[in-house]
Amino acid sequence: MTTLVFERIAVVGIGLIGSSIVRGARAKGLAGTIAVADHAGPHLARARELGLGDDWHADAGDAAAGADLVMVAVPVGACEAVAKAIAPRLKPGAIVTDVGSVKASVVRQMKPHLPAGVHLIPGHPVAGTEFSGPDAGFAELFENRWSILTPPDDVDPAALARLVAFWRGLGANVETMTAEHHDIVLAITSHLPHLIAYNIVGTAADVEQVTQSEVMKFSAGGFRDFTRIAASDPTMWRDVFLHNREAVLEVLGRFTEDLFALQRQIRWGEGDKLFDLFTRTRAIRRGIIGLGQETPAPDFGRRKG
Amino acid sequence: MTTLVFERIAVVGIGLIGSSIVRGARAKGLAGTIAVADHAGPHLARARELGLGDDWHADAGDAAAGADLVMVAVPVGACEAVAKAIAPRLKPGAIVTDVGSVKASVVRQMKPHLPAGVHLIPGHPVAGTEFSGPDAGFAELFENRWSILTPPDDVDPAALARLVAFWRGLGANVETMTAEHHDIVLAITSHLPHLIAYNIVGTAADVEQVTQSEVMKFSAGGFRDFTRIAASDPTMWRDVFLHNREAVLEVLGRFTEDLFALQRQIRWGEGDKLFDLFTRTRAIRRGIIGLGQETPAPDFGRRKG
Repeated sequence: MTTLVFERIAVVGIGLIGSSIVRGARAKGLAGTIAVADHAGPHLARARELGLGDDWHADAGDAAAGADLVMVAVPVGACEAVAKAIAPRLKPGAIVTDVGSVKASVVRQMKPHLPAGVHLIPGHPVAGTEFSGPDAGFAELFENRWSILTPPDDVDPAALARLVAFWRGLGANVETMTAEHHDIVLAITSHLPHLIAYNIVGTAADVEQVTQSEVMKFSAGGFRDFTRIAASDPTMWRDVFLHNREAVLEVLGRFTEDLFALQRQIRWGEGDKLFDLFTRTRAIRRGIIGLGQETPAPDFGRRKG
Repeated sequence: MTTLVFERIAVVGIGLIGSSIVRGARAKGLAGTIAVADHAGPHLARARELGLGDDWHADAGDAAAGADLVMVAVPVGACEAVAKAIAPRLKPGAIVTDVGSVKASVVRQMKPHLPAGVHLIPGHPVAGTEFSGPDAGFAELFENRWSILTPPDDVDPAALARLVAFWRGLGANVETMTAEHHDIVLAITSHLPHLIAYNIVGTAADVEQVTQSEVMKFSAGGFRDFTRIAASDPTMWRDVFLHNREAVLEVLGRFTEDLFALQRQIRWGEGDKLFDLFTRTRAIRRGIIGLGQETPAPDFGRRKG
């Protein structure tokens, strides 16, 4: 099925997300020509080897020239530099979007540099794996996942509709909301979970009474689940925490407050309260499975390690 | 391959773990006769329907009578009641073991009730899924997982060897350690991860700015990973926290201390420190995969939700 949405797109950053977009766009015929940019030489060379895209550029501006859609798929902290690089080369009426896990900061970083007549519509596909780089991507990554767009109040409806069509073409569901609301929603559904996972893995490595080898051998008791997201790309995640600081600190405050209450219940042997929480939390997983956002298979359908 | 280890075994509690043991023992021919007990009528009836075992008893003592091995697979808080029920019926020289996630408490609960000449060798297979009940078990659950035994200093070597042979027959690796060491190791590799998972799922449900529906829709950003172990059996986990209180509070103290350090790094924009932690945590997952305790497939090899 071919449903061309854009004549020419540029994908800046050919990591897990960028390369999945290129693969998906090609597979579904969403773009006529795909220009790829990456400032990392090895990534760019690998993209060329893999045949990801039609032309390859070390400079984001070169890729963006003439593009109808510029998809910025770089760590959030690199967005301002990309905006500066592409701004002078953007074609009038071009759509500029991104895939970052923080949205208000992206607007602050990019908007001042973009010329009038260009449509900045930030976005965030809520999808990924713990792997990084051009080899890690796959065309089906966005299927049945949600892609959030945070258009400005005065967005051009036609531009928004084309970007929505592009994400739907990749298999995603699309929802729009404000950048600020996105940032608090993702703080709870993504940033806090990553922070907690990184933290517990760090704690486990440091507890003196238990060896690293014991932590790893007996990790099937629950710990290993956390190591997956704690193996995510360090640069990307450093930038997320630095750029969504207020929302992360807010939900983190709630988390620790709740954790202290739980700690007190354990100390004082309040079994009924523990039981109530542990019962309540079951329903949320059922809801996620019901919405098609999680597998119903036991243990994630994990192959035996 | 038939390798009979025990003429007659009794499995008390036919949930996920008990039913997996029965299935595995039958599949591998590890036991001549398998008696099953469960005080919950529906579980017992279901075990009979599924043909799990050879005879079925509402009373643990009835199942234990004449058994060479009594495998207690009940929530940790129920161990004392089971010990009292089986004690008068145990055959001299019988081995009594369990599968609980806490070991020192099990010894305290059971040992005073058991007659001389019976071998109490507590155990804990570090394996499971988030599902419960007789239907949830499967014969392969213990394959390539670790089963920890915490024999007393004066354990009878022959009895220990038979129990080790039984677990190896189920496909498990076996390690022995003291009950006290087990409890701190599992506090970090299993109990703390469950506590954190339960807590974050509870926090996410309560944050007012984000709806329950948004939490579920956008859970693929990381949150859904935590909901799996937060869907574990509430009774079992209430008991774990009540019975391993000291070790859990100790590792929880370390976790929150580390989390406050991380919070401060975010507040003060210390990106280098964040990057260092996020890099260090990657190695632990590689180690777990290297030890065969985790799948190398991206996203746990999860089927699309």
